[in-house]
Amino acid sequence: MLYRKFRVIKAEIRIVGVDDGVFIPHERGFVDVVGVVFRGGYWLDGVMKTKIEVDGMDATQKIASMILGSPHYKQLRIIMLSGITFAGFNIVDIHELYDKTQLPVIAVTRNKPNFDDIRRALENLPRKKERWEIIRKAGVPVEVQTHEGEAPIYIQTAGLRLEDAEKIVKISSTQSNIPEPLRVAHIIASSLARFYAKENTK
Amino acid sequence: MLYRKFRVIKAEIRIVGVDDGVFIPHERGFVDVVGVVFRGGYWLDGVMKTKIEVDGMDATQKIASMILGSPHYKQLRIIMLSGITFAGFNIVDIHELYDKTQLPVIAVTRNKPNFDDIRRALENLPRKKERWEIIRKAGVPVEVQTHEGEAPIYIQTAGLRLEDAEKIVKISSTQSNIPEPLRVAHIIASSLARFYAKENTK
Repeated sequence: MLYRKFRVIKAEIRIVGVDDGVFIPHERGFVDVVGVVFRGGYWLDGVMKTKIEVDGMDATQKIASMILGSPHYKQLRIIMLSGITFAGFNIVDIHELYDKTQLPVIAVTRNKPNFDDIRRALENLPRKKERWEIIRKAGVPVEVQTHEGEAPIYIQTAGLRLEDAEKIVKISSTQSNIPEPLRVAHIIASSLARFYAKENTK
Repeated sequence: MLYRKFRVIKAEIRIVGVDDGVFIPHERGFVDVVGVVFRGGYWLDGVMKTKIEVDGMDATQKIASMILGSPHYKQLRIIMLSGITFAGFNIVDIHELYDKTQLPVIAVTRNKPNFDDIRRALENLPRKKERWEIIRKAGVPVEVQTHEGEAPIYIQTAGLRLEDAEKIVKISSTQSNIPEPLRVAHIIASSLARFYAKENTK
């Protein structure tokens, strides 16, 4: 299916918001990735976790497996990602993620990505052409004003129409200009990273 | 101060909800305890963590240190505990927790505690008199109907008037009969326990 049409977007549409936790010093080379299940922009229903390699190529597969293996999978309607770049330059192929999970994907960033900078950074990595191709085919980020008078966000999508994606990010941005599943995924992922960093320096 | 009076209880009163995560197989004898910072029954603002001994005597001290050491401490107005018994029979002294943190404490359970059963279970533990004394002085659990037509909850309190405690559990039970900070603390604490259990059986 090229994309999923949403006839009605319910205020409590089940969304999994995915973010990474920056670093785990006791296990160099890997980063925890957290998925937070929300009903729309309101209620947290579950938390899931996986682990991906820093600058690796496994983010798409690992995030897909995490979501497919969750008890919440059948209720989910949307995947939201905190951008497409996790754990350094482990890049999520949003089209492949849609294909594997059959759930439309919306990648959200606070800032407009600078593709010239990204392309230069990729120069130092193996499989740079493959990575660039994944970034390129994620498409041009589109500005969305989720809250009047606040900073806009930028989205890239797979598996749904832009107008549906815009509606979904707007209804789920209940507390700030960022969709709530991603705001909370960020808090939990970064707290986890801090806890386990602290435990290992005790 | 014997207790704190609340002149006004704001809908977004800052609450930390505390629950434990049942078990960590890779580190027998200790259990993760999670604190979740909420604005009322609505918005998650932070997550904190500590670790306590199974059947130990350190829950009060560890939870107090976790809260006092949090960057959210100054905003907090209330501590909510998922009961007073953590990690087996590591019992929180709610009056001491209030004294150490200067934050009123509300312990919440779904079921009316059966004190005869608890007293019998304590028979097999060291320092059983001390533990019983902490339980006894937490006071008689009071039934509160947070949602019409749903099961009531039971509360024990330290450092605030019962009528204020009742108002606070009611305004924060936005999504179920349980205050939201405790519903979400339970999801996060039990997910953490599952993740780290899984990682260690790989």
